[in-house]
Amino acid sequence: MKRTSLVQTQFLSAQDVASVVTQTGVAATLHGIADYIFDDYLRWEDFDKCARLAAHSKDGVIELMPVADAKTYAFKYVNGHPKNHRLGLPTVMAFGVLADVNTGIPELLSELTLTTALRTAAMSAVAARALARPNSTSMALIGNGAQSEFQALAFHHLLGIQEIRLFDTDRAATEKLMRNLKHTGLRLIVCENIAQAVRGADIVTTVTADKANATILTPDLIEPGMHINGVGGDCPGKTELHADVLRGAAVFVEYEPQTRIEGDLQQLPADFPVTELWQVLSAQAPGRTGNAQVTVFDSVGFALEDYSALRYMRDSARRLGMGLPVSLIPELADPKDLFSLIRPLTASHEELDVTGFTDFKELALCL
Amino acid sequence: MKRTSLVQTQFLSAQDVASVVTQTGVAATLHGIADYIFDDYLRWEDFDKCARLAAHSKDGVIELMPVADAKTYAFKYVNGHPKNHRLGLPTVMAFGVLADVNTGIPELLSELTLTTALRTAAMSAVAARALARPNSTSMALIGNGAQSEFQALAFHHLLGIQEIRLFDTDRAATEKLMRNLKHTGLRLIVCENIAQAVRGADIVTTVTADKANATILTPDLIEPGMHINGVGGDCPGKTELHADVLRGAAVFVEYEPQTRIEGDLQQLPADFPVTELWQVLSAQAPGRTGNAQVTVFDSVGFALEDYSALRYMRDSARRLGMGLPVSLIPELADPKDLFSLIRPLTASHEELDVTGFTDFKELALCL
Repeated sequence: MKRTSLVQTQFLSAQDVASVVTQTGVAATLHGIADYIFDDYLRWEDFDKCARLAAHSKDGVIELMPVADAKTYAFKYVNGHPKNHRLGLPTVMAFGVLADVNTGIPELLSELTLTTALRTAAMSAVAARALARPNSTSMALIGNGAQSEFQALAFHHLLGIQEIRLFDTDRAATEKLMRNLKHTGLRLIVCENIAQAVRGADIVTTVTADKANATILTPDLIEPGMHINGVGGDCPGKTELHADVLRGAAVFVEYEPQTRIEGDLQQLPADFPVTELWQVLSAQAPGRTGNAQVTVFDSVGFALEDYSALRYMRDSARRLGMGLPVSLIPELADPKDLFSLIRPLTASHEELDVTGFTDFKELALCL
Repeated sequence: MKRTSLVQTQFLSAQDVASVVTQTGVAATLHGIADYIFDDYLRWEDFDKCARLAAHSKDGVIELMPVADAKTYAFKYVNGHPKNHRLGLPTVMAFGVLADVNTGIPELLSELTLTTALRTAAMSAVAARALARPNSTSMALIGNGAQSEFQALAFHHLLGIQEIRLFDTDRAATEKLMRNLKHTGLRLIVCENIAQAVRGADIVTTVTADKANATILTPDLIEPGMHINGVGGDCPGKTELHADVLRGAAVFVEYEPQTRIEGDLQQLPADFPVTELWQVLSAQAPGRTGNAQVTVFDSVGFALEDYSALRYMRDSARRLGMGLPVSLIPELADPKDLFSLIRPLTASHEELDVTGFTDFKELALCL
C-alpha cells in the first residue's frame, strides 16, 4: 500500500508567492500578514523562542531562525550580504518551512525573499499603530532599496500615511521607488539629504543595508513626538541610530535577547530599559505615553513574524490553488524499510506483497 | 537583462538521491561519503561549529544543524519521532542545503532522509576503522530498523565485517533486514536476545529508536577488546548504554559540546574524559591503545557529516546529470527592485527597457 499523501511537502516558489500577492492585492496582503502577526504576538507565551543562529563571514551573515508552538514548527534561512547588489544579486534572500510538531513532517517549503519584505513592513506597521502618534500622515524613508516600497505601502495602507520623504545615497534606487509607487496615491518627495527628509516627519523609517556602524540618525535630527522605525540595524556591527537617539527615546523591541545582540540596542549597556512589543500589543505595558515622547521600534526581524507570514502564505496559496507538491521526504510502504529505496533488484518481490509474512522461514521459502 | 543562472537552486528529491545511490552502487556510495567525511574531519579547525539547535516536544524533536567553512555553509533540518512508525511515517526525516558563504545563495537543496542513513553508517565505519581491533570480522547489530542495513553494509564494505548478529524487539524488522541483505554475502544470524547477539562479537552497534533512557548494553555483556558503536543515544533523555559501560571504556565523540548534551555521555559528569574523533583521525591523539581495551564511539550525528554528505551528493548528481533547478530565490533584473515581482501592470514598461534611465524627469516624460 503506497501512502502517497502522508509525507508530501507543498512548495511555493518565488513566482507562486508573487502570484499570491498580485491576485490578493498588495494592500490586502499587508493587512492579512499584519493580522496574522498581531494574532501570534498576542499568544507570545505559547512559543518556544530563541535568538537566531548566525554564521558571520567577512561580507555577510547566514542565519537560521526557528520558532515553534505546540502544533507548528517554523524556520527561516536568510542571508544578509550588503555587497551582493554589485553582483546583481539581492542583499537578502530567504526561504522557510512549516513543519508538524507531532510528526516532524515538513509540510510547507516556501520562498521567503519577497515574503520577508512583506512581513517586515507589516511588522513595522503593527508596531507603529501602537507607538506612533495617532493621525500621523508623513514618513521619512531613509534607504530606498529592495524593502522600501513595502514599508511605504504598509504605512500607507495600515496607518494612513499620505506623504513619504525619500532619501538614498543611490539616486537610482530612489527613482526606482518612485516608478514603482507612481500610481499608489502616495505623495512622494525626493530629498537632498537625511536632514531634509526627516524634518517635520511624523515617522522616520531607516532601512539601509550597509554592514557597518553607520549613523543615519543623530540626536539633532530628532523632533518631539517622532516615531522611529529602525529596520536596517539588525546584525552585530550593523547599526543605524546614534546611541543618544536611543537614550532619548522609549525603545521597543521584538525579542529582547536577540535585539540586545543584533539591534541598534547593541550599542547600549545590558541594563538599558526596553519593552517587548508583545506586552504593548496585549495591553500589559504602555506604548507611547505622550505626544512629545520619542518612540523607537528597534526592529531586527524575529522568527515569529516568519511563522505568521508562512501561515499566511500557506492559507492564501491553498485558497488560490497555488503551489506544487515536491518529494523532499521519501514515501515508504514500510517506515522501517528505508533501504527499500535503493533495492531495485528485489523491488518486484515487494510488489508481490511480502508484507504479510511474519515467519521468516516461510518467507525464505517464498523468495 | 534577465540573470537566469545566478540564483538557481539545484533540487535533489528523495528519488534523485535513491537513483544516485543505485547508479553508483551502495558500496561505492558508502566509500565515497566516508572519504568526504574523512577529508573534512582532517580540516576540523577550518569549520565554524556549534551544537545543533533542538526544539523538543512530547513525542519528538526537530533540529537544525548548521556548519560552515570560509566557502560553504551547510545546514540540515531533521526530526526524531520514535512513535512515527505507528502512523506509517519514518522516525527520522531530513533535508538540507549547501549555500555559498560569499553571497548567501542556497545552491543545493537535497533530501537527507536516505542520505542521513548513509552518512551515519559511513561515519560509524570511519570511526571504527580507527577504534575497532584490526581484523574484526563479526558485529552485533541491536536495532534492525530504518538505519540497520546501512550500518551492516558500511561495516561489511569498509571494515571487512563478514558476520552480523541481529536482534530487535520487533521480529518483523529483523526479517525485513534479512530480506534486504539476502544477496550481499554477509552471514546474518538472528539472535533471541541482546546477550546472545553481543557474545563474541568484535563490534557492537546499537541503533535503537526509543526516546527513553534505555539500557541496551550493560557492563556484564561487554568483553575485552570490543568496540561499541553507539548510534541510537542521541538526544537528552534518549540513551542506550549503561553508564558503567562508558566508565569502563575509552570514549570517543564527534563534537564534545554537543555530545555532552545529547550522547550517552549525558549520564556522566562534565569532567568525564573523552576524545574528539578528529584528533584521532589526524594523529593528534591515540585511538585504541591495546587489544583488550574497550572503545566506545558515542555517536550523535554532527553537522559536519551532513556537510560532507551534501557535498558528495552534489558532486555525484552533477556527474550523473541528476536533479532539477527550482525557483527558491527570485530572479531580479535589478537586485534593489524586489517590488518588480508584484508590479504586473507596469511590467510592460520594464520590458521596453527603462533600466538605462538615470534622470527621473526624463523617465517621467517617457512613461
